[in-house]
Amino acid sequence: MRYVTAGESHGKELTVIIEGIPAGLKLSADDINRDLARRQLGYGRGARMKIEKDQVEFTAGVRFGETIGSPVCMVIRNFDWENWKRVMSAAQEDFDDKIAQVRPRPGHADLAAALKYGRHDLRDILERASARETAARVAAGALCRKLLAGFNVFIYSFVREIGGVTADIPGKIAPDEMANRIEQSPVRTPDPAAEKKMMDAIAAAEEKGDTLGGVFTVVARGVPVGLGSHTQWDRKLDGAIARGLMSIQAIKGVAFGLGFDFGGKPGSQSHDEIFYADGKGFYRETNNAGGIEGGTSNGEDIVVSCVMKPIPSLKRPMKSVNLVTRHPDQAEAVRSDVCAVPAAAVIGEAALAFELAVAFGEKFGGDSVHEAERNFKAYLKQIQEF
Amino acid sequence: MRYVTAGESHGKELTVIIEGIPAGLKLSADDINRDLARRQLGYGRGARMKIEKDQVEFTAGVRFGETIGSPVCMVIRNFDWENWKRVMSAAQEDFDDKIAQVRPRPGHADLAAALKYGRHDLRDILERASARETAARVAAGALCRKLLAGFNVFIYSFVREIGGVTADIPGKIAPDEMANRIEQSPVRTPDPAAEKKMMDAIAAAEEKGDTLGGVFTVVARGVPVGLGSHTQWDRKLDGAIARGLMSIQAIKGVAFGLGFDFGGKPGSQSHDEIFYADGKGFYRETNNAGGIEGGTSNGEDIVVSCVMKPIPSLKRPMKSVNLVTRHPDQAEAVRSDVCAVPAAAVIGEAALAFELAVAFGEKFGGDSVHEAERNFKAYLKQIQEF
Amino acid sequence: MRYVTAGESHGKELTVIIEGIPAGLKLSADDINRDLARRQLGYGRGARMKIEKDQVEFTAGVRFGETIGSPVCMVIRNFDWENWKRVMSAAQEDFDDKIAQVRPRPGHADLAAALKYGRHDLRDILERASARETAARVAAGALCRKLLAGFNVFIYSFVREIGGVTADIPGKIAPDEMANRIEQSPVRTPDPAAEKKMMDAIAAAEEKGDTLGGVFTVVARGVPVGLGSHTQWDRKLDGAIARGLMSIQAIKGVAFGLGFDFGGKPGSQSHDEIFYADGKGFYRETNNAGGIEGGTSNGEDIVVSCVMKPIPSLKRPMKSVNLVTRHPDQAEAVRSDVCAVPAAAVIGEAALAFELAVAFGEKFGGDSVHEAERNFKAYLKQIQEF
Amino acid sequence: MRYVTAGESHGKELTVIIEGIPAGLKLSADDINRDLARRQLGYGRGARMKIEKDQVEFTAGVRFGETIGSPVCMVIRNFDWENWKRVMSAAQEDFDDKIAQVRPRPGHADLAAALKYGRHDLRDILERASARETAARVAAGALCRKLLAGFNVFIYSFVREIGGVTADIPGKIAPDEMANRIEQSPVRTPDPAAEKKMMDAIAAAEEKGDTLGGVFTVVARGVPVGLGSHTQWDRKLDGAIARGLMSIQAIKGVAFGLGFDFGGKPGSQSHDEIFYADGKGFYRETNNAGGIEGGTSNGEDIVVSCVMKPIPSLKRPMKSVNLVTRHPDQAEAVRSDVCAVPAAAVIGEAALAFELAVAFGEKFGGDSVHEAERNFKAYLKQIQEF
Repeated sequence: MRYVTAGESHGKELTVIIEGIPAGLKLSADDINRDLARRQLGYGRGARMKIEKDQVEFTAGVRFGETIGSPVCMVIRNFDWENWKRVMSAAQEDFDDKIAQVRPRPGHADLAAALKYGRHDLRDILERASARETAARVAAGALCRKLLAGFNVFIYSFVREIGGVTADIPGKIAPDEMANRIEQSPVRTPDPAAEKKMMDAIAAAEEKGDTLGGVFTVVARGVPVGLGSHTQWDRKLDGAIARGLMSIQAIKGVAFGLGFDFGGKPGSQSHDEIFYADGKGFYRETNNAGGIEGGTSNGEDIVVSCVMKPIPSLKRPMKSVNLVTRHPDQAEAVRSDVCAVPAAAVIGEAALAFELAVAFGEKFGGDSVHEAERNFKAYLKQIQEF
Repeated sequence: MRYVTAGESHGKELTVIIEGIPAGLKLSADDINRDLARRQLGYGRGARMKIEKDQVEFTAGVRFGETIGSPVCMVIRNFDWENWKRVMSAAQEDFDDKIAQVRPRPGHADLAAALKYGRHDLRDILERASARETAARVAAGALCRKLLAGFNVFIYSFVREIGGVTADIPGKIAPDEMANRIEQSPVRTPDPAAEKKMMDAIAAAEEKGDTLGGVFTVVARGVPVGLGSHTQWDRKLDGAIARGLMSIQAIKGVAFGLGFDFGGKPGSQSHDEIFYADGKGFYRETNNAGGIEGGTSNGEDIVVSCVMKPIPSLKRPMKSVNLVTRHPDQAEAVRSDVCAVPAAAVIGEAALAFELAVAFGEKFGGDSVHEAERNFKAYLKQIQEF
Repeated sequence: MRYVTAGESHGKELTVIIEGIPAGLKLSADDINRDLARRQLGYGRGARMKIEKDQVEFTAGVRFGETIGSPVCMVIRNFDWENWKRVMSAAQEDFDDKIAQVRPRPGHADLAAALKYGRHDLRDILERASARETAARVAAGALCRKLLAGFNVFIYSFVREIGGVTADIPGKIAPDEMANRIEQSPVRTPDPAAEKKMMDAIAAAEEKGDTLGGVFTVVARGVPVGLGSHTQWDRKLDGAIARGLMSIQAIKGVAFGLGFDFGGKPGSQSHDEIFYADGKGFYRETNNAGGIEGGTSNGEDIVVSCVMKPIPSLKRPMKSVNLVTRHPDQAEAVRSDVCAVPAAAVIGEAALAFELAVAFGEKFGGDSVHEAERNFKAYLKQIQEF
Repeated sequence: MRYVTAGESHGKELTVIIEGIPAGLKLSADDINRDLARRQLGYGRGARMKIEKDQVEFTAGVRFGETIGSPVCMVIRNFDWENWKRVMSAAQEDFDDKIAQVRPRPGHADLAAALKYGRHDLRDILERASARETAARVAAGALCRKLLAGFNVFIYSFVREIGGVTADIPGKIAPDEMANRIEQSPVRTPDPAAEKKMMDAIAAAEEKGDTLGGVFTVVARGVPVGLGSHTQWDRKLDGAIARGLMSIQAIKGVAFGLGFDFGGKPGSQSHDEIFYADGKGFYRETNNAGGIEGGTSNGEDIVVSCVMKPIPSLKRPMKSVNLVTRHPDQAEAVRSDVCAVPAAAVIGEAALAFELAVAFGEKFGGDSVHEAERNFKAYLKQIQEF
């Protein structure tokens, strides 16, 4: 299973091709659009979120509401394309050197990638580096989520911190109640008190022309024991997930379970002791490991947290250098959000969904959903009879 | 460029094949053995470190002190093999069901992988899951380090926290002085006051039959702008490095630059402003990003921190279940270290060295060191003339 | 560098995403459309070729007539989509079980893939297995051809045999004259006498409701010594090219240089002796090897021939079995060509162009055309000074 | 599943690491040594074949006669190492510029790779490019063969042509009788009349200091329908097999089923009509396609033929150029065989075995042999009930 995306932020459309999806997966545009909409929510988003209302179109791989084994191609149009088609034109005759952007923004790919690719109009870089691309990834992730549901795996996310305000995450709470709280919250946090403070912090930052980052957690419930592998460095499930999440725009750290708090705990309080009960099989009473031991899922929830740096496009721009004059200048000001941590959490779900779908594919094979699920069920039985 | 390792902890030997190394790289066993020795150091290590004294043998790819373009094969023998050759024999006739290990250790791959692979002797799992395998990775990394030196890239590491004791990392310090302090320190930390406390914490943990984790930082100096790419999710340099580091045994979190502290800072204090000076070109006065923006190296040091969970093999074992009886039991007790954070930092250097070598290979190509370095220098000139 | 295609034969559009193209490549839709048109030519093509007139649209990765380093996305619309949108609809509500195709065609993926993917309407298979997909591959290849031109590599193809009629390929002929003859020929063959006979054979087959296969040769001129590698089985240039060409629909054999005639020649008459002249460097007077020795390009033209089986969609269908009744039946009759060997040759050019572009990328790196070509030129100088 | 090999022809040892083999595969050194011995047989082999008697040692991944899920590492020692350890030393101090080989052999990687890698002693190239490396591949293939046997897949090979002498391959013959004839034949051919003529041709070539190539066929019996995929160019089974076989030293062409004879047959006589019988399911009465349609196995035997060029190391060397003087010279004379087509056929078996094992892994997943075979059997049932 693999996917690639293409498309610039203000280009005509985003495209994602995802391949290796078993045939027979029930799939409608709504399944995808739901997550595209969730990606656009969140207190602190900028104007574009109101314009977009992303919608997916299947142009390949889905017929009569089912995947057919072919690569699935999904397209998300830019509804504002008419206003951009000159600036983003593929035709040489539309070239206009007066529109070049030449003041790189600290914190973005702008300068580094312009030097790498030898581009003198920063727009050639920033259009692709933009987090707009994650809409395509969310579409791929939504498809994987549908696939995972057939294996009884469910993925959700919540916000743990925004701008220094940390939430109190309830330890014992019914999944439905948790989901409800999160999806209702404008900042995707289950702690109502923190929610208020986070929103205040965002409003204050906006007033100052500033931005905020934060921390979110993605959880996969129902993951069976045995995904990933301890046998080679590049087959570990945590390594794959870390790559997937770290590759999301603005993510600077990824940690499983207790994460960086492991640095302060002794071993005797760190590891998840092993228990057994008839019917239930092996289980744990804690999940400090975040569901992965030795690069392998251990049957507990996979719990992974990510830190997002504050959005680097500021209304009050930072110091930069004009590429043409080489003189100090202010960074380009680009339309942006104040805080996108809740959206990033949804993108994180997509990244995790894809990596788990890959891991399922490797472990269970199967060219149809029927075959993959049959292999999966037989394995669950094997585990019980181990 | 790619590498795979093979070998069990108490098997006859560890093997690593690394491929895609340009021809003409000067290489001696000492270049590798130096890092193998550094991996074995550190206050808090167990008995095996005294036995091992790892030495590499080149069995392929090196001739007369130079790589020749062929895959390089390195072998690290187990000097204690005579004592293990029965237990780890490949021959069916040596099978002995009385030696099976059946009490999985919390925090290890033991249980998850036994279920996955359907193995009833946990030794079939733990021998490969063991961090002993990282000796092979350190060998590959040492080779990459040699290659990177030709591009003026130097990698070092230090320990930031052990068992809750955090070091004060000097901001302004000459590289040589920094290196000197770290290499002299029994816990690889540049802060003498913390060093003492860390060693005390280790000694105390040992007394209690407990173990400690911690946090280390790996730094690559001299990395040019333009490694990695913003253009696709799986081509980002930070994603690749995150995977490489997360795949090290016991690592549970990876973060660049400010890492999880980004959650508490506003954008205006988070990003690294851009400056320019003749001769020097573009530069930054801060490095909060840890040297990567938009998935691309930005010319500053790459700074990445990892958290290591405490070693899960405890002298006073945790609760587990006997696989045969299904009754509660104590986890298997396996010879182990009290704290291996300093060693993990050296392994982290190797993982980073490999990922950077890959990124150099992708950007500059080259089948001989001469060709790769020529392409690199021409690029540096291009950057200056941008 | 990598590419994936998506799209069904009668779906809305074909999509190809190609990634890793250096920035700064001059590119217009005409560069692509020229090859799309060449793919549609050839005596013996069916009705659809008149409908199609394929045109590419860049939806990503190209701005103002240049690549920008981003993935390039190209879309080829199905101009007949209005007539197919019900049959190929992605929406579940359009499902209509009366249109299912249930009589698999021998020689196609129909039966094998229906069993594999568990599909009971063969259209779910044949729409993707169709050679229509090669339009997307030709688009990717045309882009690569443009890139290769900057390295002075030019690719052409000709037909060697159709339906048992073999052409006499002129040994000494000016490249322009050769190209001229081929492009003018309705069957892409440089031998006017054979051309006539091939066309007669095609006409005769058409009359009988039959089809014809044949053999074509693809040549890359100007390939430098040193692409590919002898060092590992999966890095050999001939292996990569063989995979690329064999993956073209209906191709059943791939051979370099003398190909299967090597079986009848002694070594002394098989290998290309080595000569040297000042200015010219090392050279050969023969090219039996087809430009590759030891998995590595040797500086001579790369010459690779492929056999195409006759198109398996026959006007007079072959024996098959009805999937529903399990009774003998005639295979589904699907609109098709009588002979597509000339078109396959153009597709072969695309496949070769891609593999060579990959090999250039691996050897020379480079994120901009400027950088890649600079590295290439420095290597040419190195070779001269060897 | 993947494998890499390392090792030079006269180096200390060859190493192969193969990864992704399910746990629980019964495996002994004899399983591997049997094929290593078969690779060394054949009329027309040189002196080295008598010295070698290759033997494998498992240094990782096998315990008590079973794979354990870890990467399997196999080592084949060079029994003549004592005589070569100076010439092939890894140590710089053993360098001796007087032993450099400077007269490249036409038909080998010598010149092309020396220029590519910038090596002035051709031994740096030819030691790795040598077909000696295929011993490691045969070891990997033998392991895959063992795995495939559990899926009821059996692979054999025979020689079809040597030096222009073609064998008459019996169409209807019991598998055992066929196997018997081949394994007894000094040239691996089932046609006793041709066998005699082939041996005569080899003897005549040897007398003239010449060498011979030929054509062999590899067959996989018992392959289920549905391996590979039509859905993407790089997932086609024939493409993968073509790459694997073309990557074998001296192979210049690969063709399935009728191969290049498809060029002369009309469609109506080319494709394999489809039949059905209760109990038996779908079947064919012919196998012109060689078992693959649309990139997917169709349930018939996979039949693939390869042409091998004559060995380029001649007793009476061809014309070359001295790298130092740039003057015409004779190519280096290297100890070699007169004809190695029978050995190449055995290597071809290994290459096919590996590609099929990969395809099984992708389709059926499974981390233990038990799990993989269970998934496989459930699929067979699904096919029957389709």
